[in-house]
Amino acid sequence: MEKLYDVIIIGGGPSGLSAAIYSSRAKLKTLLFEKAACGGQIIITDLIENYPGFDDAINGYDFAMKLESQAKKFGTDFAFEEVIEIKDGKTKIVKTAAAQYETKSLIIAAGTKVRPMGIKGEKEFMGQGISYCAVCDAPFFKNKTVAVIGGGDSAVQESIYLSKFAKTVIAIHRRDSFRAAKSLQDKMFSVSNISVKYDCIPLEIKGSQKVESLIISNLKTKEQEEIFLDGIFVFIGLIPNTENFNFLNLENGYIVTDENMQTSAQGIFACGDIRKKQLRQVVTAASDGACAAVSAERCLVN
Amino acid sequence: MEKLYDVIIIGGGPSGLSAAIYSSRAKLKTLLFEKAACGGQIIITDLIENYPGFDDAINGYDFAMKLESQAKKFGTDFAFEEVIEIKDGKTKIVKTAAAQYETKSLIIAAGTKVRPMGIKGEKEFMGQGISYCAVCDAPFFKNKTVAVIGGGDSAVQESIYLSKFAKTVIAIHRRDSFRAAKSLQDKMFSVSNISVKYDCIPLEIKGSQKVESLIISNLKTKEQEEIFLDGIFVFIGLIPNTENFNFLNLENGYIVTDENMQTSAQGIFACGDIRKKQLRQVVTAASDGACAAVSAERCLVN
Repeated sequence: MEKLYDVIIIGGGPSGLSAAIYSSRAKLKTLLFEKAACGGQIIITDLIENYPGFDDAINGYDFAMKLESQAKKFGTDFAFEEVIEIKDGKTKIVKTAAAQYETKSLIIAAGTKVRPMGIKGEKEFMGQGISYCAVCDAPFFKNKTVAVIGGGDSAVQESIYLSKFAKTVIAIHRRDSFRAAKSLQDKMFSVSNISVKYDCIPLEIKGSQKVESLIISNLKTKEQEEIFLDGIFVFIGLIPNTENFNFLNLENGYIVTDENMQTSAQGIFACGDIRKKQLRQVVTAASDGACAAVSAERCLVN
Repeated sequence: MEKLYDVIIIGGGPSGLSAAIYSSRAKLKTLLFEKAACGGQIIITDLIENYPGFDDAINGYDFAMKLESQAKKFGTDFAFEEVIEIKDGKTKIVKTAAAQYETKSLIIAAGTKVRPMGIKGEKEFMGQGISYCAVCDAPFFKNKTVAVIGGGDSAVQESIYLSKFAKTVIAIHRRDSFRAAKSLQDKMFSVSNISVKYDCIPLEIKGSQKVESLIISNLKTKEQEEIFLDGIFVFIGLIPNTENFNFLNLENGYIVTDENMQTSAQGIFACGDIRKKQLRQVVTAASDGACAAVSAERCLVN
């Protein structure tokens, strides 16, 4: 029946492609599934300037193409199909709508999706003033005005971070107090260029080529306001793509692994944004991918 | 007296430079110490072909220069001096022969050195047929003859790894049995293109431009033999550069950290090869560096 692979990788973002580079370079028969185009979240990233080794910032799409070509060079097979079901066992079965595949080990690198605000203009201006990562994009907003949407630790932490770059940071939160840790809130309130708008939700983003203004609505007064700004940072949560992996040990939807990327199931590894971890960056995803592939290789030897 | 830094980084290999990129990009006042030239172990690496993002292999020295220029671009200061003493405290004091520096947080990225065989020809042919990393360099020895020196887990594991690339692998060990895990040994003995020479030590490496032969001596028979080969992989141990860090929690000489690179001392982080970890690769070092810098930034905010 189906061909037997040494390693099947689900997801073609930086962690999956890094796993593919390491796995195929180690001469393991490797197949990578990607449901859309390779790159994952970085495809919606205009410039990456903090991935170590690229002293000139690189465009997210170009970077993804480099990773893909590197994996192909070492012999990774690619299948541009959506995985719809996994069957665990001594070997693992990976099903798509069209076919099924068999593998000795499985690396899950399916990533997360950002929780969108779901308002007009959001899709249009993705990467053109709308960002979901301050550590990634803050330096592009030096002396600009930005809004931060959200009320948790991330929103507050990233507001503080952004305040070192932007001229003005406007923190917009739908409730009348923040959920974030008190120490973070104290810090935020002490920063002079951060102002807060409570009880407000974003309604619509306007602009021609890129973001120019945000219309917000006050939930208590029902008044609307148009804020003129250059950037909108959205921190209302991530959604890990773990629908097909509920048989694994999860925490808040993320896959729990040890530092070798081993999940709760023998022969199944997870890497990148989909696993429970502290820092979600391109370089940490790439590192996870390398670790997952080396762990898969060792589990096949033993 | 001395200038107060937000972050001082000790070591200019991939992990230290990555920490510098992240830390200075986050607008932290950052100083990096390197006692020789930036790059660390990768300077003795001819080609790196498994660092994700470089689909054309890159020379170790060129890669180091890119990391350094990226860190400089974001404003990292560099001091090419050897650190001789650390004083821990609310702020930390870093001493060199010439001066002392004060910092709110410290990132240790001082790396390891390989334990050399200490034989004639070893220094000369570093990177010209002598390697200390199979995952890094095995693909450069396709259909060639290589020797592996050592008897522990690494030596055996890497012999198996190399056997998938090289035509012949000769495992050379000074004792009459291996220390490695039994399962690994069984696997090694089952591979047809690995042969073992027990009770032998390397004496001298010969060649003109690159490695051409290795002279070994049998400790029991006292006989010498010249083996003609293309590569020598040395796995007789690494030595972590932790002389100045004995006040931290160490394990086998390596600095123990959590996944955020936090050491046993408040405000001190360690990253890259010097910390206790499973996989020592350029990309895992770079990832560690990013995590350490973000942790330092968070500890300064809180």
